[in-house]
Amino acid sequence: MYGLITRLTAHPGRRDELALLLTDPAVKKHGCHSYIVAHDLTDAETLWVTEVWVDQPTHQSWSRDLRASGAWRAVYGLMAKMDESILTRPLGGIGF
Amino acid sequence: MYGLITRLTAHPGRRDELALLLTDPAVKKHGCHSYIVAHDLTDAETLWVTEVWVDQPTHQSWSRDLRASGAWRAVYGLMAKMDESILTRPLGGIGF
Repeated sequence: MYGLITRLTAHPGRRDELALLLTDPAVKKHGCHSYIVAHDLTDAETLWVTEVWVDQPTHQSWSRDLRASGAWRAVYGLMAKMDESILTRPLGGIGF
Repeated sequence: MYGLITRLTAHPGRRDELALLLTDPAVKKHGCHSYIVAHDLTDAETLWVTEVWVDQPTHQSWSRDLRASGAWRAVYGLMAKMDESILTRPLGGIGF
C-alpha cells in the first residue's frame, strides 16, 4: 500500500471548483483504495487530499497519464500552490 | 462529515505496537467512515492517522468514552508525542 497526504491551496474563491475537479468520477482511479478531498476548517483556500493506492508505481502511472492527457491543466489553473506530499505506508483501519 | 489528520510519534522502536493498538478491531468506531493508520516513509517513529466521521459530536463522544474506559492508556504509553490534529470537512472521493 502507498499513501499520500497533500495540502493544496486554491486561488482565492476557487476552492470548491478545485474540489469538484478533484472528485470528478469521470477521472478513473484504478488501483486507488481511498481518495478523500476535504476542506481545511481553518483556512478558506486550503484543501487536503488523502490517498491510498495499491502501490507507488500504480499511483505514478496514473499521475503521469493524467498530466499527459491534459486533464490536469484545469486543476493547475485553479491552484495557487501544491505542497510536497507526505508519503506513507497505510497499514490498516477502516475504509480502504 | 468531520475529518482529522494527525501525526503521532511513537517512543523509539514502538511504532508497530502503537499501530496495532490503533487498528484493534475490538475498539468499535460507530459513525466512523474511514480510519487509516499509516507509517511515515521518511521517519521511523512517525505514524499518520486520517479519519472521517459522520460529524464532530460523534467523534468527540467516541474519543471521550475511550479515555474514560482506560482503553487509551496503553496508547499513551507508547506515544512520545501527538500533534494537534488538522481538522477538515471531507467533501467526496473514494473510500468513505
